Amino acid sequence: MRAAMARQLSRIMRPDDANIAGNVHGGTILKMIEEAGAIISTRHCNSQAGEPCVAALARVERTDFLSPMCIGEVANVSAEITYTSRHSVEVQVNVMSENILTGAKKVTNKATLWYVPLSLKNVNKVLEVPPIQYARKEQEDEGKKRYEEQKLDRLETKQRNGDVILPVINPDRQTKEPHTVGYSQSSLIHLVGPSDCTLLGFVHGGVTMKLMDEVAGIVAARHCKTNIVTASVDAINFHEKIKKGCVITVSGRMTFTSNKSMEIEVFVDADPFVDEPRERYRAVSAFFTYVSLSKEGKPLPVPQLLTETEDEKRRFEEGKGRYLQTKAKRQAQMQQAPQQ
Amino acid sequence: MRAAMARQLSRIMRPDDANIAGNVHGGTILKMIEEAGAIISTRHCNSQAGEPCVAALARVERTDFLSPMCIGEVANVSAEITYTSRHSVEVQVNVMSENILTGAKKVTNKATLWYVPLSLKNVNKVLEVPPIQYARKEQEDEGKKRYEEQKLDRLETKQRNGDVILPVINPDRQTKEPHTVGYSQSSLIHLVGPSDCTLLGFVHGGVTMKLMDEVAGIVAARHCKTNIVTASVDAINFHEKIKKGCVITVSGRMTFTSNKSMEIEVFVDADPFVDEPRERYRAVSAFFTYVSLSKEGKPLPVPQLLTETEDEKRRFEEGKGRYLQTKAKRQAQMQQAPQQ
Amino acid sequence: MRAAMARQLSRIMRPDDANIAGNVHGGTILKMIEEAGAIISTRHCNSQAGEPCVAALARVERTDFLSPMCIGEVANVSAEITYTSRHSVEVQVNVMSENILTGAKKVTNKATLWYVPLSLKNVNKVLEVPPIQYARKEQEDEGKKRYEEQKLDRLETKQRNGDVILPVINPDRQTKEPHTVGYSQSSLIHLVGPSDCTLLGFVHGGVTMKLMDEVAGIVAARHCKTNIVTASVDAINFHEKIKKGCVITVSGRMTFTSNKSMEIEVFVDADPFVDEPRERYRAVSAFFTYVSLSKEGKPLPVPQLLTETEDEKRRFEEGKGRYLQTKAKRQAQMQQAPQQ
Repeated sequence: MRAAMARQLSRIMRPDDANIAGNVHGGTILKMIEEAGAIISTRHCNSQAGEPCVAALARVERTDFLSPMCIGEVANVSAEITYTSRHSVEVQVNVMSENILTGAKKVTNKATLWYVPLSLKNVNKVLEVPPIQYARKEQEDEGKKRYEEQKLDRLETKQRNGDVILPVINPDRQTKEPHTVGYSQSSLIHLVGPSDCTLLGFVHGGVTMKLMDEVAGIVAARHCKTNIVTASVDAINFHEKIKKGCVITVSGRMTFTSNKSMEIEVFVDADPFVDEPRERYRAVSAFFTYVSLSKEGKPLPVPQLLTETEDEKRRFEEGKGRYLQTKAKRQAQMQQAPQQ
Repeated sequence: MRAAMARQLSRIMRPDDANIAGNVHGGTILKMIEEAGAIISTRHCNSQAGEPCVAALARVERTDFLSPMCIGEVANVSAEITYTSRHSVEVQVNVMSENILTGAKKVTNKATLWYVPLSLKNVNKVLEVPPIQYARKEQEDEGKKRYEEQKLDRLETKQRNGDVILPVINPDRQTKEPHTVGYSQSSLIHLVGPSDCTLLGFVHGGVTMKLMDEVAGIVAARHCKTNIVTASVDAINFHEKIKKGCVITVSGRMTFTSNKSMEIEVFVDADPFVDEPRERYRAVSAFFTYVSLSKEGKPLPVPQLLTETEDEKRRFEEGKGRYLQTKAKRQAQMQQAPQQ
Repeated sequence: MRAAMARQLSRIMRPDDANIAGNVHGGTILKMIEEAGAIISTRHCNSQAGEPCVAALARVERTDFLSPMCIGEVANVSAEITYTSRHSVEVQVNVMSENILTGAKKVTNKATLWYVPLSLKNVNKVLEVPPIQYARKEQEDEGKKRYEEQKLDRLETKQRNGDVILPVINPDRQTKEPHTVGYSQSSLIHLVGPSDCTLLGFVHGGVTMKLMDEVAGIVAARHCKTNIVTASVDAINFHEKIKKGCVITVSGRMTFTSNKSMEIEVFVDADPFVDEPRERYRAVSAFFTYVSLSKEGKPLPVPQLLTETEDEKRRFEEGKGRYLQTKAKRQAQMQQAPQQ
């Protein structure tokens, strides 16, 4: 038994980490968060004698981007193990931006990730997680509650995910009206290389999230034609591993707009096109929320999404539901903790 | 049997993709073109039951850079299989730059690539290509004509390539007069890493082309000391595979200047220096054409190349021949299709 | 006044960080060391009210690579400010490799770096460094001694460096005998991009060191045609800043071989080739020591370097001097602290 360990990771943000307005891409931050999580959980799962294993990302809880990070700032990422069940590890990660010239620091993200230890010898075998010690009994109880909640949600998404129809990607925007779903719909393909992968030969969750954010950003920019930044990412479940040599197609379509935000649904499909008899499969899906910013960094109104088909209208209503739910939850939190 | 498939790939152009004036390097675009081609052709060649394979780049036809691409723009690359012979696949690729803020789109490149399927189990075994279906008979006939033409050209280059003498690179520019061949001559070495390679463990054609463009760009900039951009690349033949762990030497020398353009010959030599008995060999060679731009992006006059040796004079005349031929061909095309 | 601060930085080592035998390149480690140093010293120099500044690398003391780091391991880099003079900061950095599967940790490097704060508004203005507090008086005295020593050495190298003649690089190895200086001599060129640079627009010292190690590694591999790893780097002085948009030429030549090691001298020359009237200048130079390893990771005998010219013979003798001096120093240290 051992206590939850903290771990820090720092990096200077460079021009390639940011968009042309100088704001660091949400995807760059998600990738750093996941690297910190992967290190701390893999280390913990190997801390007792037994079969060596690699911690694989199973789920990321909803993540808000509280304030922007800029080129030249240092991103400080610290991770802590906050709960362990028999087969999974919860890691909480904090990201602070630090302007090393002025000394100013800001919390930019708080994220919660779930990892599962997979045997290094047999990638399909889930191992047991050494339990952590809690300073107080309530910490364990609260962790258990979070564990049960995410387990339920994972199950639900898995069922929903099976139904989802592959998005029809039509890059021929010339025939589409601006502000329709089809107009901004985008996709990119990426050939999974060695540097994208863990020791087990499948893609790091952080690499996948970075690509998802890139597509969501292109969809958002096409829709509102301004400088855009990631505001939040809904819970992401990693149902299926993606192996080295796959081609992954990352597709994004806008589902909902409020006055000042856009919701984009992103799918990741893997194509094990060489050496594998398997069909293309859906590996991950998630909702990203983006906001539009003026040159001075102020939020701008977003053009309303024009829905054409029945499916688009239904997805718009579902997006509205998620939007109102998040809004209500945030207001409730603010009333509970007015000082924060 | 299956129809030719279309495929799209998009990516935002970042600061590291461009020179200091903000123009995206031709090499970055060539690398994306090749990635799209490799994916679509590898998928096609694995579409029928049989030995799994990877499509290896055999040749790129002459490619013109019709308009510059800038940082912050989205590069949209779409690829289509347009012809198949028994052992090779022709892929046509279009690149559009899209300013997602203004919605402005421009065609920046049209390229044609030829791939050959190599067995995943035996890298020296060329497999058969599943035939595609043509909408019209003429498409097949025209494809066959293109196939025969490139086959002939490949054979010719192979013979010519054998004769080429290794360029003696003398980086001591202090003793050289400006505008001579020796003054701008440059070379770089690159240790082939895992990320440069396909599943078969040899270098992606796109990686090679990016390095070739990098050297050509340095030669051009050293000659005219201004902002320079890639205008076109002549047909490139990939005679020999380059394996992981090789050191490659990419050398460039200026061969010809017109009033507003420079032609640079680039060689790629591979050194299988660890664990291999083999000698250094010539893997690829090609001609790149560059233009010089003012700060406002207008074409500038180029200082004339000073030739000193007999070989340099001969190469200058050959370059002039290629220049005049291309010019004549382009004028003929413009008369045929004045509306385009 | 404030105490010396510690800072930690971690990263998983990926295939691209290593050679084909799986050993992480010394250059990758040097780059991480410098990033940690740059963060901690820039933060410190901005910790008091005054002109904002960026800490620029002025010197790296001799660095030994005590044990290899492998793909999949986590590199833990921690930095501490150990001395401040009026205009410079000494940072000591420790690198530990951690196998997160077995929990095994090893010290791989200990490095000492010197930084100088340059004004963000005027890159040529050196600012004053806020003094640190020492726990014990001896710490300050020892720091002052190290400061005086490096100052002297910097001055000496600067004078010596002026004399050094530009190496004539002849890549045509076919005409050279194996194991001669000319046979393994190599150079690479690199166009400085935005991601290579600090906020002041000049190249990060870590980027330069990574390129120097890359060239030294190629020279070493060409000489002995086996798997090679960095064993140590002699003190490196950064005489001149290298600006964005420069082309840098990094050249390496072997100077000395002992039974089991090779010494390679590396030069970095900058070419401010666009928009600058300035001539090419020598920015950095250093000696790297490499060892050759068998497939099992055991040190192999190194073929003796064949010297042909008087200069080569002189450099061989000088290298032998450095080798014997280092050997004597190491033996003296081992007798002083046999348990360590």
